[in-house]
Amino acid sequence: MKSYEFTVVESKLVYEGAIISLYVDKIRNAEGRILEREVVKHVDAVGIVALDDKDNIVLVRQYRHPLRARLLEIPAGLLADREDPADCAVRELREETGYRARKVEKLAEFYTSAGFTDEQFFLFFSADLEAGDPSPEPGEDDIEVVLTPLREAVEMVSRGEIKDAKTLTAILMAAQKVGRIEL
Amino acid sequence: MKSYEFTVVESKLVYEGAIISLYVDKIRNAEGRILEREVVKHVDAVGIVALDDKDNIVLVRQYRHPLRARLLEIPAGLLADREDPADCAVRELREETGYRARKVEKLAEFYTSAGFTDEQFFLFFSADLEAGDPSPEPGEDDIEVVLTPLREAVEMVSRGEIKDAKTLTAILMAAQKVGRIEL
Repeated sequence: MKSYEFTVVESKLVYEGAIISLYVDKIRNAEGRILEREVVKHVDAVGIVALDDKDNIVLVRQYRHPLRARLLEIPAGLLADREDPADCAVRELREETGYRARKVEKLAEFYTSAGFTDEQFFLFFSADLEAGDPSPEPGEDDIEVVLTPLREAVEMVSRGEIKDAKTLTAILMAAQKVGRIEL
Repeated sequence: MKSYEFTVVESKLVYEGAIISLYVDKIRNAEGRILEREVVKHVDAVGIVALDDKDNIVLVRQYRHPLRARLLEIPAGLLADREDPADCAVRELREETGYRARKVEKLAEFYTSAGFTDEQFFLFFSADLEAGDPSPEPGEDDIEVVLTPLREAVEMVSRGEIKDAKTLTAILMAAQKVGRIEL
């Protein structure tokens, strides 16, 4: 039987920052070949599909510096130390949009780009909301709330207008879940 | 009208490697507040949903060092310098699985994790395949080909068994596209 074992020969910490750390590792495969791998360790992240009682999905538009652009996304943020992912989803939704989710359930969890980062994303769902005032964190005061009919959001996916990966996945999974939208 | 302008005050290159570069930037928002942003510049990536004539999706299982685990994924790889994304999709499918895609079309393009990286992913689709022998690149010889009925792949998404984000998106978009699967 073929062996798929890899062993770590060397692991060098290149940078340790607020949200990410960068390692350059040397690993040896079963044939003895040495491979170099650049690995970004990243704090885990959480997002939420929030639907109001008119089947609008609560989206936000915000500046994303890596792209020098404002993207349309589901409310999301980074997991605080020892925070429960579901609590984090509720908190981020409230901070960014003002909506209180009275009940949430998990929709999915996935690795955002497994080739170079260990970032894991926890996706939640709520269709039980109460409107309120947002309380943005410092540096997040550019966030605009955009209510979009879920049906329209699915069409935006088909037209290639949703550029943020987690949001694209979230819209498709939400449509699959509620079952009221023809995909 | 509220201003959403951000200006770059400082951009420091911390690491420049084979696939990624790391920058630590200082940016100023409209209120004059200075924010620090860690940015990973990443080569763009390409993947393909390939369906054989029995509606099996061609998946691969391979070692992902950031997770110290083998993940089930669509065939994918990094865009070579000046390579056309569609050509790259055909090449990666052939190298990793042996299948030749005679016709491909674009399904989506998205940013994998816009908060910290500019990595863009181009997703293609082909249902016109010819089987052949794989020709893995050095270091990719641990790749196993896994043919999975598309219907079963959709069920694996529902059961939370697909952990790779692009693969999760790809399966849902493929099912939406072919329209033969109840989501």
